[in-house]
Amino acid sequence: MDYQSLLNDIYNEIQPELKRGKVADYIPALAQVPQEQFAMTVTLENGDIYSVGESQKKFSIQSISKVFTFTLALHLYSKSLYQRVGVEPSGNPFNSLVQLEYENGIPRNPFINAGALVTTDSLVSYYGDEYKTLETVLNFVRDISDNQEVTFDPEVAKSEMEHGDRNLSLAHLMKSFGNFENDIESTVMTYFKHCAITMNTEELSRAMLFLAFGGSDPLSGKVFATPSQAKRINAVMLTCGHYDASGEFAFHVGLPAKSGVGGGIVATVPGKMSIAVWSPALNKYGNSHAGTLALELFTSKTGVSIF
Amino acid sequence: MDYQSLLNDIYNEIQPELKRGKVADYIPALAQVPQEQFAMTVTLENGDIYSVGESQKKFSIQSISKVFTFTLALHLYSKSLYQRVGVEPSGNPFNSLVQLEYENGIPRNPFINAGALVTTDSLVSYYGDEYKTLETVLNFVRDISDNQEVTFDPEVAKSEMEHGDRNLSLAHLMKSFGNFENDIESTVMTYFKHCAITMNTEELSRAMLFLAFGGSDPLSGKVFATPSQAKRINAVMLTCGHYDASGEFAFHVGLPAKSGVGGGIVATVPGKMSIAVWSPALNKYGNSHAGTLALELFTSKTGVSIF
Amino acid sequence: MDYQSLLNDIYNEIQPELKRGKVADYIPALAQVPQEQFAMTVTLENGDIYSVGESQKKFSIQSISKVFTFTLALHLYSKSLYQRVGVEPSGNPFNSLVQLEYENGIPRNPFINAGALVTTDSLVSYYGDEYKTLETVLNFVRDISDNQEVTFDPEVAKSEMEHGDRNLSLAHLMKSFGNFENDIESTVMTYFKHCAITMNTEELSRAMLFLAFGGSDPLSGKVFATPSQAKRINAVMLTCGHYDASGEFAFHVGLPAKSGVGGGIVATVPGKMSIAVWSPALNKYGNSHAGTLALELFTSKTGVSIF
Amino acid sequence: MDYQSLLNDIYNEIQPELKRGKVADYIPALAQVPQEQFAMTVTLENGDIYSVGESQKKFSIQSISKVFTFTLALHLYSKSLYQRVGVEPSGNPFNSLVQLEYENGIPRNPFINAGALVTTDSLVSYYGDEYKTLETVLNFVRDISDNQEVTFDPEVAKSEMEHGDRNLSLAHLMKSFGNFENDIESTVMTYFKHCAITMNTEELSRAMLFLAFGGSDPLSGKVFATPSQAKRINAVMLTCGHYDASGEFAFHVGLPAKSGVGGGIVATVPGKMSIAVWSPALNKYGNSHAGTLALELFTSKTGVSIF
Repeated sequence: MDYQSLLNDIYNEIQPELKRGKVADYIPALAQVPQEQFAMTVTLENGDIYSVGESQKKFSIQSISKVFTFTLALHLYSKSLYQRVGVEPSGNPFNSLVQLEYENGIPRNPFINAGALVTTDSLVSYYGDEYKTLETVLNFVRDISDNQEVTFDPEVAKSEMEHGDRNLSLAHLMKSFGNFENDIESTVMTYFKHCAITMNTEELSRAMLFLAFGGSDPLSGKVFATPSQAKRINAVMLTCGHYDASGEFAFHVGLPAKSGVGGGIVATVPGKMSIAVWSPALNKYGNSHAGTLALELFTSKTGVSIF
Repeated sequence: MDYQSLLNDIYNEIQPELKRGKVADYIPALAQVPQEQFAMTVTLENGDIYSVGESQKKFSIQSISKVFTFTLALHLYSKSLYQRVGVEPSGNPFNSLVQLEYENGIPRNPFINAGALVTTDSLVSYYGDEYKTLETVLNFVRDISDNQEVTFDPEVAKSEMEHGDRNLSLAHLMKSFGNFENDIESTVMTYFKHCAITMNTEELSRAMLFLAFGGSDPLSGKVFATPSQAKRINAVMLTCGHYDASGEFAFHVGLPAKSGVGGGIVATVPGKMSIAVWSPALNKYGNSHAGTLALELFTSKTGVSIF
Repeated sequence: MDYQSLLNDIYNEIQPELKRGKVADYIPALAQVPQEQFAMTVTLENGDIYSVGESQKKFSIQSISKVFTFTLALHLYSKSLYQRVGVEPSGNPFNSLVQLEYENGIPRNPFINAGALVTTDSLVSYYGDEYKTLETVLNFVRDISDNQEVTFDPEVAKSEMEHGDRNLSLAHLMKSFGNFENDIESTVMTYFKHCAITMNTEELSRAMLFLAFGGSDPLSGKVFATPSQAKRINAVMLTCGHYDASGEFAFHVGLPAKSGVGGGIVATVPGKMSIAVWSPALNKYGNSHAGTLALELFTSKTGVSIF
Repeated sequence: MDYQSLLNDIYNEIQPELKRGKVADYIPALAQVPQEQFAMTVTLENGDIYSVGESQKKFSIQSISKVFTFTLALHLYSKSLYQRVGVEPSGNPFNSLVQLEYENGIPRNPFINAGALVTTDSLVSYYGDEYKTLETVLNFVRDISDNQEVTFDPEVAKSEMEHGDRNLSLAHLMKSFGNFENDIESTVMTYFKHCAITMNTEELSRAMLFLAFGGSDPLSGKVFATPSQAKRINAVMLTCGHYDASGEFAFHVGLPAKSGVGGGIVATVPGKMSIAVWSPALNKYGNSHAGTLALELFTSKTGVSIF
């Protein structure tokens, strides 16, 4: 298949959609990103890379980082992690306290904010302090993306913290149920820092390759997760990767994927390839509007789907 | 792969689990089914069938029938169906009125009771009365299972109706929101009748084959859904097929599947095969305890998974 | 105190408010009532009656009838009634299924729809059938209002039933929890019939006199409730009498009272008098807009209040 | 009426009940209070005081302090206070985040924790810092109780803060909705300090006298609230004073009252007297078990009630 032509076609078809949706504006650092931008990259098992648009432009990966921290925590804690966070779709907006309260402080899954906070907290408990935790997360992302330059934007993290009351509320609520172990402020700050990692679609697509191939990077041969863990991370991406539009996404796109409010979406086609797409304007569910459509076009045109 | 040996191994491994779980007892007709029974059937593209256990024994397919009515309704109404029922996991127990009330009478997906009632209601609107609707559903199931003998158990349907207040409550609530079009009592009765269809695992596995192969039965060549519809039905089975344990099921088994309180579960391995399993004792989520474990063993041993 | 002058003053002050609010329009029989009408009647212990406005004009008492059926049921069942219905404010809109589901089919109080349905159901169980029940309710209202002509409007009851799906949904839900004993359709119809009783403010004010005087009618000497029951009915009116604006009403008016969507409100000043007011346009909580303001004016001007 | 004999009778009748219920144990300082203690004091308009039991023994007034901060804030802000906190019963457990989230960070009433936190926050905004706020609250309580020795227990406040995650969660959630103005940690600490005020039933009964007499202390002649404000504070005590058992309390006791987890309850009989009762063991709703029963006995035996 001529992936370059395919991406070019998608790029052209998607242009009118770039005007639609709305860039995240809850913090200034995200609000100032120009709306009409788009990038998409596909990485194959043999390392071939196909890109279109601004695939070199870095953006805030935000919730996509939750895939990486979940992978790390699953690797460290294995099944015991599930005592602290579930794997069930939430059926509610992504930062809801309601469900957390009804379910005694155990978040539904690692991709809603509460679940990602508890995941980060589990890493801080393991690594002993927030500095080692952040360094480990950064090094992990550098390893899977085969790029030692990856880092985060401290301005974005600081800005998040200034508007971080809802996440602080979630953390205190979980602590009141005994499901938060470390200092709340520094742990939440660590969470905001890994959400503030900046990458482009080429780096993100490369970083997801191991999850498309059973946990092992087919290029470097490094093992980042067991086949069973990789399968399960893909399953959680499919059922929970797009907040309360996860069902819609599975229905229309049919790939395990995870979105972030920075406008990025990463996806895997297990056994075949990994994909990253970026366009900063979001639909009403908080997922990239053009990015979602581009992935739907990709699966329609190629027929690739897990179903 | 030697599927027969594999099924035999699963059969042996699953024996100790047959004592666990609890047979559905909300109606007498289901409560009297002996607990320690098990059957599993795999059907391949070429028509090869592998079975183990009581694969000839018929049981009440219950919610599995929702896959068939959803397929029919999607075929008739296409995208306009989504105005009446969504495709999002509910995150709540399967017959919850809470979410239905908050979301103005639009059920989250076609596999929770409210969604299946509205799907049946849409069929009654299309076919004009409940008799033609039931006949159409029965004929559809006969066609996809290539077995003209398939029918339902009127005693089970009658018994369901006698304990049907919660479903009647759901239907009246949807009607109060303008999302129910036909006579409530006869439509709910039609729903109970198609839930009371009795089949064995060989018939059910055969009936699901078209969904594993893009909507077309690879043996008869008949087209029951478009490739896009088949993909979407599989997606909804994956995200919503097991009530509020759908995430767990995707996580552990990794296949599109649908369970029923009669103890049956059907699953597809897209492009490869269809599977049916039956064991009447249910886990706390209302899904077959041994059936779920048998499917998890199957995907672990074969490595088949969509992820 | 010169009550007639006081009522005349209120009548004049309230005129500009009669244009505000909105007449109930969920059934045609209520929707066609002209908006700008107002009546108010005060009845004293010695039988003196003071009225202003259209105090002879009959209107649909609707939920005010719940005070009368609750009085009857409390008299028949005493404390055992509380096993089927509570006395706690609901904190939710008046016909919410959510709370009913979370609380296993036991309605919060007898003045929300679910609670009134269960109260009517308890009367049908006691009197054996719906005809005797309706006759008993009518005779009770005739006795307390000392007016044998009181009856209901069958057109209104029929119209309610045609739009009664939400109440039918509530009744079926309670039945699924074992908290509904009689035939749903005929019991709900009986409920709609007693809600369709028509009275004017003079009759209603007279009917409430016994509740202002410890359960005994100070004019006829007849005992309709024990002092303890009268006190408790007043308490429930105060905490639950105005749906989810009961706190606001207690805060601003400070009297036990019950409103109906027909625009009527009845109130007691324990030990002193009973009051009825009517103006058909409702505020956003479903309580008479001008009626609420008139009662607030009355308590401000007279200084009467229970607090 | 011979109040002393009456209190003696209640004291004797209540003895067997002192073994029932459970002392609050969420912080050590409260958990160590011996269970079988009881005190009750009645204060009349002329200053006559009747007491029984350990009426000199100080206890932690906890949520009773919310009446005092609400009175202060209502006096300072008048109606504009209602933009930040409602006057409606919550119908939910007293520290629920669910309702707060659904209702955009506006607490239902000033007596649930969220509402009391926002009330304290409004005082901090007015007085400029937490020290002046605490001093003002203490001086107010000293004035209304005519006792300049009243203070708080810093150990209890510190212990509350160590277990204060749920309140911190509430405060952060309100801040995320823009309904919290000051530094969260120091404001919550100020809240815990005024909850940690220690008083005995004689002091508390005295402190409530102004609320029984239209806002003016009948002994000192000092005006602490307008008649309208006093009426409204009594109304909120009646509808919201006992968490989600407020309806039950109104139903059984029939007096405006406010309880605290330290086992105290204060009540007013408007125009007649103020009452304080204390017994540390709580019923399942978090209200003093013996204290509630003692007040029910008091209203039954005297016939006083607002209804």
